[in-house]
Amino acid sequence: MRLPRLFTPRTVVSAHCDLPCGVYDPAQARIEAESIKAICEKYQANDDPEFRTRALLIKEQRAELVKHHLWVLWTDYFKAPHFEKYPQLHGLFNEATKLAGASGAKGSADPEVADRLLAKINEIAEIFWETKQA
Amino acid sequence: MRLPRLFTPRTVVSAHCDLPCGVYDPAQARIEAESIKAICEKYQANDDPEFRTRALLIKEQRAELVKHHLWVLWTDYFKAPHFEKYPQLHGLFNEATKLAGASGAKGSADPEVADRLLAKINEIAEIFWETKQA
Amino acid sequence: MRLPRLFTPRTVVSAHCDLPCGVYDPAQARIEAESIKAICEKYQANDDPEFRTRALLIKEQRAELVKHHLWVLWTDYFKAPHFEKYPQLHGLFNEATKLAGASGAKGSADPEVADRLLAKINEIAEIFWETKQA
Amino acid sequence: MRLPRLFTPRTVVSAHCDLPCGVYDPAQARIEAESIKAICEKYQANDDPEFRTRALLIKEQRAELVKHHLWVLWTDYFKAPHFEKYPQLHGLFNEATKLAGASGAKGSADPEVADRLLAKINEIAEIFWETKQA
Amino acid sequence: MRLPRLFTPRTVVSAHCDLPCGVYDPAQARIEAESIKAICEKYQANDDPEFRTRALLIKEQRAELVKHHLWVLWTDYFKAPHFEKYPQLHGLFNEATKLAGASGAKGSADPEVADRLLAKINEIAEIFWETKQA
Amino acid sequence: MRLPRLFTPRTVVSAHCDLPCGVYDPAQARIEAESIKAICEKYQANDDPEFRTRALLIKEQRAELVKHHLWVLWTDYFKAPHFEKYPQLHGLFNEATKLAGASGAKGSADPEVADRLLAKINEIAEIFWETKQA
Repeated sequence: MRLPRLFTPRTVVSAHCDLPCGVYDPAQARIEAESIKAICEKYQANDDPEFRTRALLIKEQRAELVKHHLWVLWTDYFKAPHFEKYPQLHGLFNEATKLAGASGAKGSADPEVADRLLAKINEIAEIFWETKQA
Repeated sequence: MRLPRLFTPRTVVSAHCDLPCGVYDPAQARIEAESIKAICEKYQANDDPEFRTRALLIKEQRAELVKHHLWVLWTDYFKAPHFEKYPQLHGLFNEATKLAGASGAKGSADPEVADRLLAKINEIAEIFWETKQA
Repeated sequence: MRLPRLFTPRTVVSAHCDLPCGVYDPAQARIEAESIKAICEKYQANDDPEFRTRALLIKEQRAELVKHHLWVLWTDYFKAPHFEKYPQLHGLFNEATKLAGASGAKGSADPEVADRLLAKINEIAEIFWETKQA
Repeated sequence: MRLPRLFTPRTVVSAHCDLPCGVYDPAQARIEAESIKAICEKYQANDDPEFRTRALLIKEQRAELVKHHLWVLWTDYFKAPHFEKYPQLHGLFNEATKLAGASGAKGSADPEVADRLLAKINEIAEIFWETKQA
Repeated sequence: MRLPRLFTPRTVVSAHCDLPCGVYDPAQARIEAESIKAICEKYQANDDPEFRTRALLIKEQRAELVKHHLWVLWTDYFKAPHFEKYPQLHGLFNEATKLAGASGAKGSADPEVADRLLAKINEIAEIFWETKQA
Repeated sequence: MRLPRLFTPRTVVSAHCDLPCGVYDPAQARIEAESIKAICEKYQANDDPEFRTRALLIKEQRAELVKHHLWVLWTDYFKAPHFEKYPQLHGLFNEATKLAGASGAKGSADPEVADRLLAKINEIAEIFWETKQA
């Protein structure tokens, strides 16, 4: 399976604040989603109630960060011409953020749900890197 | 004693956390946008540099809250059938959150920009309340 | 097309940041308290431990927001003449914020406790709207 | 080796989270107010515009923390019997939090305003420690 | 009337924002750690699951604050000459913040772990106050 | 000049929350520092006072994030054996976080200061990736 461009050497730049500084990077959402997956795996392997409570509350925070980083990309990085060229983009972001929410990674401790979230983030990342090369 | 309209039964609805509790209300975004407009008006009327710095930093926070409240509605409240029925909805939210950002209310202290943001939020609110009555 | 009551001219008012922008609205506290009530109801109807942990942690955040919005009204909106005219106001706010805390909505998942919090917020809202009409 | 006074048995007390853990300490508000005073003094002594912008935004955050720590004491630590014994307490907290806000330390970079805030916090602290000794 | 020791001239010091205002005080970390200890004790004495969930999530927040306050001291207050004079200082801070994290107060509800954290904070505080007297 | 390992294909993993999930990635600090550099460049090229105020306040937030991400690596990822093998590590982190603070990227809008911060983060990243391969 081909690695998304995200991990190739050229991925140096990126930017993301709302000055805007112009630096955006889907890695921010991906790192949090990787964290969610690891939390789910540890949760399934450990039934100590204190550990599980901590796992759920930290997963909730990480999932909120995934949503935030994706929303920032959707609103701040992508512009009208991108949405024209990639008509599926609105739907992708809506589904990805839903997958990070109550009906996805917040509401479930199943690593497979985290995998679906990661796959959706990768779909977005591929489009992102295509637009950076244009 | 007469209850203000705000508290009459029909405006009770709304809900918004990601349990989800099921309570959503576009008033949350609107109140922050009203605040932005008032800040812009005070900014234009006062050229004390300390006041202006404070106005800009508070406006930045309020605009971030507008974005957040709108993103929550877009991801957490609206579902696939809504997006089918209102095909303009994705675009509306994208424009509204951009209008709260660097190319809108964050980047400008012009009350007219805040008015455009408020108008866009009202467009969203009308659709929101239609879906609640369905 | 009919505008929902929420957006009719008379409910426009309110304001709340500490510039101050002059926009305050008890709806901010009420929406969070409605959320708490809905969370409590869902909590009582669902004994899945993962769901219950999430419900408690989200309720905790919502209750903190109720406290914050009420504190802002008490400190930033209400002035000395209001406290003279409504001598019960200090006590009302202190009880309402306590009802959102450990001895109230934070410490209990009983919807009836959320109802008592909502009733207290409504008492404050009635006074608030009286002062806006004066 | 001599322990600094800070760590002698009698200053152990205090408590402040909303479990509640039972640990409250007016030092939290006081430290932030000391910070505000130091910021004001540095602001007056330095007219570099970059420094002044940073000073104002940090002062804004510190003043928000003062308000928060005081609100917590007022709602979470003080109980009905305290308000009966110290009828001035509601007013003191309302004035102190106003002094940390737009009409006080947020709205002014005058060290003398910070001094008034510190004095008000000390008045509250004296009552606080009296109630701990009772 | 006698002022509590807390407010005597010599404990005025401290400073902590990153202007920098110059005000630092290890009491900020210590108060949060005292809170953690009290939470652990209440946790051990109460096996109501709702209470225990709340205790764990509040403990998590308090432990994060301990880490933050310690990191600020380590980066912002202590300078190169301090690290030369106290070569153990880097290690102390690293151990103290670890003791507030997953392998310490976050990962355990044992009051004895909180005590070890408090002892480590006191070691840091002693060095801190020595440097203030120099 | 050789690219730090950070950008080679193998850099997939990483982890960072305090469960701990085991996912850490110096890219989080680097992205914020890239943002700071871009902000500084835009600041120097634009003397509109509103833009400059926004740039300074956003830079302040980004620099705080750099500090936070570095502190997390230092406390949560690196363990005693790492500090033994890399005795310069404590100093590197202390200098890097200072370079993100008042005496560095917070206190200066010079892109060259941001470059020094980026170089220091890269030094840390190289050690980080060496330890991941061990």
